[in-house]
Amino acid sequence: MTTNPLAPEASAMHRLLHAGSVAVIGASEDRGKFGGRLIYNLLHHGFHGTVYPINPKRDVILGHKAYPDIADVPSPPDVAAVAVPAQHLLASLQGCVEAGVKVAIVITGQLAETGSEGAKIQDEAVDIARAAGMRILGPNCLGAFNVPAGVCLSPSVTMSVDKLHKGRVGVASQSGALQTAMFIRAFDEGIGFSSAITLGNQADLELSDAFEYLVDDPDTDAILLYVEGLKDHQRFKQTALRARVMGKPVVAVKAGRTDAGAAMANSHTASLTGSYEAFSALCESMGIVVTDQPDTAVFCADALARWGAPKASGVAVASGSGGAAALAADAIEDSKFHVARLGPMAISHLAEHLPVLKETANVDFGAYIHAFDPKVMRDTLETFADEPDVGALLMIMTPQPAMEHLAEIMRDIGSKRGVPAILCNKAGSMVRDQLEADALETGYPIYTSLDDCYRVLEALMAYRQFQIEEVTQETGDALAPTIDASASTLSAGPLTEPEAKALLVAAGVPVTREVMCTDADAAVQAALKIGFPVVLKGVARGLIHKSDAGAVKLNIPDVAAVRSAFAEIQEAIAGKAPEAVFVGSLVSEMVLGEVAEAFVGAAWDPQHGPSVLVGAGGVFVEVLKDVKLAAAPVSTAQAKSMIQSLKTFPLLDGARGRPKADLMALSDIVHRVSLLAAHLGPRLKELDVNPVIVRAAGEGALAVDARAVWNIVE
Amino acid sequence: MTTNPLAPEASAMHRLLHAGSVAVIGASEDRGKFGGRLIYNLLHHGFHGTVYPINPKRDVILGHKAYPDIADVPSPPDVAAVAVPAQHLLASLQGCVEAGVKVAIVITGQLAETGSEGAKIQDEAVDIARAAGMRILGPNCLGAFNVPAGVCLSPSVTMSVDKLHKGRVGVASQSGALQTAMFIRAFDEGIGFSSAITLGNQADLELSDAFEYLVDDPDTDAILLYVEGLKDHQRFKQTALRARVMGKPVVAVKAGRTDAGAAMANSHTASLTGSYEAFSALCESMGIVVTDQPDTAVFCADALARWGAPKASGVAVASGSGGAAALAADAIEDSKFHVARLGPMAISHLAEHLPVLKETANVDFGAYIHAFDPKVMRDTLETFADEPDVGALLMIMTPQPAMEHLAEIMRDIGSKRGVPAILCNKAGSMVRDQLEADALETGYPIYTSLDDCYRVLEALMAYRQFQIEEVTQETGDALAPTIDASASTLSAGPLTEPEAKALLVAAGVPVTREVMCTDADAAVQAALKIGFPVVLKGVARGLIHKSDAGAVKLNIPDVAAVRSAFAEIQEAIAGKAPEAVFVGSLVSEMVLGEVAEAFVGAAWDPQHGPSVLVGAGGVFVEVLKDVKLAAAPVSTAQAKSMIQSLKTFPLLDGARGRPKADLMALSDIVHRVSLLAAHLGPRLKELDVNPVIVRAAGEGALAVDARAVWNIVE
Repeated sequence: MTTNPLAPEASAMHRLLHAGSVAVIGASEDRGKFGGRLIYNLLHHGFHGTVYPINPKRDVILGHKAYPDIADVPSPPDVAAVAVPAQHLLASLQGCVEAGVKVAIVITGQLAETGSEGAKIQDEAVDIARAAGMRILGPNCLGAFNVPAGVCLSPSVTMSVDKLHKGRVGVASQSGALQTAMFIRAFDEGIGFSSAITLGNQADLELSDAFEYLVDDPDTDAILLYVEGLKDHQRFKQTALRARVMGKPVVAVKAGRTDAGAAMANSHTASLTGSYEAFSALCESMGIVVTDQPDTAVFCADALARWGAPKASGVAVASGSGGAAALAADAIEDSKFHVARLGPMAISHLAEHLPVLKETANVDFGAYIHAFDPKVMRDTLETFADEPDVGALLMIMTPQPAMEHLAEIMRDIGSKRGVPAILCNKAGSMVRDQLEADALETGYPIYTSLDDCYRVLEALMAYRQFQIEEVTQETGDALAPTIDASASTLSAGPLTEPEAKALLVAAGVPVTREVMCTDADAAVQAALKIGFPVVLKGVARGLIHKSDAGAVKLNIPDVAAVRSAFAEIQEAIAGKAPEAVFVGSLVSEMVLGEVAEAFVGAAWDPQHGPSVLVGAGGVFVEVLKDVKLAAAPVSTAQAKSMIQSLKTFPLLDGARGRPKADLMALSDIVHRVSLLAAHLGPRLKELDVNPVIVRAAGEGALAVDARAVWNIVE
Repeated sequence: MTTNPLAPEASAMHRLLHAGSVAVIGASEDRGKFGGRLIYNLLHHGFHGTVYPINPKRDVILGHKAYPDIADVPSPPDVAAVAVPAQHLLASLQGCVEAGVKVAIVITGQLAETGSEGAKIQDEAVDIARAAGMRILGPNCLGAFNVPAGVCLSPSVTMSVDKLHKGRVGVASQSGALQTAMFIRAFDEGIGFSSAITLGNQADLELSDAFEYLVDDPDTDAILLYVEGLKDHQRFKQTALRARVMGKPVVAVKAGRTDAGAAMANSHTASLTGSYEAFSALCESMGIVVTDQPDTAVFCADALARWGAPKASGVAVASGSGGAAALAADAIEDSKFHVARLGPMAISHLAEHLPVLKETANVDFGAYIHAFDPKVMRDTLETFADEPDVGALLMIMTPQPAMEHLAEIMRDIGSKRGVPAILCNKAGSMVRDQLEADALETGYPIYTSLDDCYRVLEALMAYRQFQIEEVTQETGDALAPTIDASASTLSAGPLTEPEAKALLVAAGVPVTREVMCTDADAAVQAALKIGFPVVLKGVARGLIHKSDAGAVKLNIPDVAAVRSAFAEIQEAIAGKAPEAVFVGSLVSEMVLGEVAEAFVGAAWDPQHGPSVLVGAGGVFVEVLKDVKLAAAPVSTAQAKSMIQSLKTFPLLDGARGRPKADLMALSDIVHRVSLLAAHLGPRLKELDVNPVIVRAAGEGALAVDARAVWNIVE
């Protein structure tokens, strides 16, 4: 199913969006029907190729010769659009195959999404297509369109607009209806899409086919995705990497956090690595902006297509209201960007106009000596745009005089100076008609929601930050042979502590000095070698919660105590976990010099691949869920950023007079666990390294305990 | 300045909003000027009283006889509107006073808000008015209007709309421009205001004057406030309580969190009780909905005026898109309400229409067997509305067939069945013109932002929750004499530990058994009486951080150790804090049986009054800022809710196999500290009780250490 990225013109998506000939099955002149809207929309938006309306009851439809059956068409159509009821789908597709159709767009619904009967029809449809080499978009989709090529293959009612804007945002959406909502939101603001593709049930062509197409599409500058679930995260990740190389920003709307919530209940690690979080982590590592607001996503994609990464991280704010200025200051304080600081030149320049001077770029034009003077407003905003700390401008327009000038000023700054310049209309219908007409004419959007403004500014600044950061593509290949050697003997299910630790050791993670002992004599010898005090931990296949079973004895001071501890552990396991198979006890050093405890984990998510997580250990991870997740692998620098983003980071950083913990050592452990997870893939279902004892800076960190669940992958 | 609530008709606000005669100083026919817009707006919106245009250059303005000076007016005007430049303000107000004006609306700006020169003019303006018993609204405001009375005293450009909607939301706003933005937002959605008052610089009449007026106004059902800072929190609180008694919901937009951020840097307790948090806590205790989004506030106030408290806490969701349904489920999972559950009758009834049945009320009309059939959509939504768990309905409309029916269905449910029914238009311009025309005609708003939908639903459910909760008005009067006795000897500044603890004891808070000893012999006697091990803590006026100075010795086992500890503490204080005056050492019991540490604090905020806070102690309060703040006093039940809302509550509730802590004992301490704070008012600037040691359930809790800062109030 993978297309060749070096020859994108050969892909099914490319054929579909550049179709030279289209058969519309069930074409009619009744726009109340899918087939009627499909052919109308195709012709309405200026299709230059050949159209074959298929309808046994008509000779001509909308001026085009109609054919009773697709078999009657004079030459094989590139694309057929199929919107027949579910019970006629298979016959229809069989006809398409026989007519030599290359791609079928299947609008038909009531298939896999309604249960097993529908799923059966859908599977057979795919079989018919595969056997003949025909590809399917859908079913249960709303087609696709390519504005520059003049190909509109969609039955959506939104396609009845007079003319599609030309724009630089390419869209791929699993949901048809949601794509139409994003389309109309964009359309109303003058924002155009290059191409938009709806995937529906993804029986054949899937999200990444559309994503790949858009990455290669010369008419697309930014990509907007609506994702419910990934079919192939490796392909998604590769495509995202290619988008990055091509300099095309990507924005994703993701649904399904609720399902993730359900999955969270499963096990402890699963609760921290549910699929929504894994998806977000994957996107974060690829520089993809994730939001759950379709409107916001439209504006983010437009802003990123228009401006890319801003030149600085500060935002200058202007408004027509002191109240709005105060609320903006509050909102920005909560955000991930800051109000820009002004340099001395700008301050002395603006002092002419403003009775009260500030060093931050947040002004109220109503408080100016000449309130709302258009020349002064332009001068102020242009001064802001040229300041080195200003990466973007936000103008909050409340009802005020001279409103008609502001859109032009902001548009000039945004278009000619290349500084993101966002105008939010809080004066509603007082100026809306004029602003909307301007937006439709110029393609420069006006915002109405401050929520959207702040989220778009955050997205621009996040994209800037991502551009600045180095990209690490370390694969840990050097560790592969040792890891594979450790992994070769494992069987499916929960691993014992020594097995889990052997994997850690293979990845270069420091673990406690310890010896596996099958009898008390061996344990005594081991303890003498390690040095007292020691720890004894029972090892039994099938025993997961060692402490609860009384199978952990800390701080054992001497030989006699080792003997009694060994016996007590064996007895405790037999009593508390009779189903577990006792193997022996692990004798290990008692770790001293602890500054902080940490938790490091890894998990495999079937949809989103391997991830790694880190959190402050003990009570913090369990009660506060204070963990940071990332797609694996991560570099040590990325691991360090993850640790620094924890709410509990001050505990590692010398809070309350503690010594600073060895951040580099912990970062290295996170990095190495991430390499382990990335290399083992689905084999390592989950891994908890808990606790990791972190000593003072320069003194290292040690994995003290570990548990893992192993998968056998065919 | 306080008006008599029993005679609201006598209030200045009432006079202003029911003016029978108005003088407009600087009246003109040029709507480019404040005076021109003022008289135009007044006449345009049908003022029935007498108008006196004041303008020496005209005989008639807009058909009304003009006067050269206010002194020439035949009888004293109720109200004068003044929009002269700042340098003419005093002369103008002097004229008003001499003409017998009762209330002056001062639009003039460039006064106190620009610095000390302007502040001087403003102060003199107030002096002139006070001396004559005239009241002032403003300066730097945009006037006020009362729709039912036909009194529009505002120069705002927004008043140029053809006709003001009649509505049930009353508005009081410190910012004029922000009020106009909220007005136009409401207007465009068909939402009307009863009265709206802008306060500007609040030189005389202030927010609570307007708030009081609206509470008494028979045309107002819900109140919308924009607050920058309170002048008199007691009055605000009394008015909020009266609003509650009158059954009028209140929504507040608050600015100034950033200033609060600055104040946070001051001291440790201040950082937890900054004024924004204090305001929110005050509002929460009064059932006031707080938001920082003016648009949201408009919709919240409208919804609360329209429906009050919903009948149940679940929300039913319908949409035209599976994607929107999924995203709604995610958003609701994050919110403080839930998707409603359906009963068996509703489920079997809906099964006719839906191929896939669920027990939750979240449906996609696109997935129905007869997709988008208007009858089926109505049947579904009405079935939802009648379900016992459904408190409100949300319909997310993406581009789809039969959209024109949905507004009517939702309006019927919202109006005739009294169930909050919110329609969000995500189909943009495809239906907007029709929906807006309907909204303007019917006064039933259509939403466009899902953010607003979710926040309004949260506000409705929060209001419902508040209605259910009992209101405690316990004042702690019985404790007043003992508290006052303890307080009578204190002097300003940081208190010593025994002084702070004496206040706690007076409020009935259990503290450690301890004796204050001025020499080593006394310390030994005390230790023998208390029983070993004991703790010694140095007491020195001016010593704040005892532990850092080495003035705390824990776990002292015997007489000899008491003697040496006493000497070491005295020496340590002399060495480390030479400016502190050594008083002696406190000998106290070593507390055993700790299950958890807690932090309890109190603070006085000049704007918002007394507050109490609680958090998990030790590292949690300092690193994680996991505290809950409330306006003082709180009942033990409210204290318990505060504690249960902490992220770290599981630590008190038996997490990780600990015993459950004595929640009732800790709640009682929070309650008693809140009574102390409420009774002492501004005298108790701040109080930290840290740690409070909480033992296992039934075994109590103890204040182990305390520090406080005392104010002398004249």
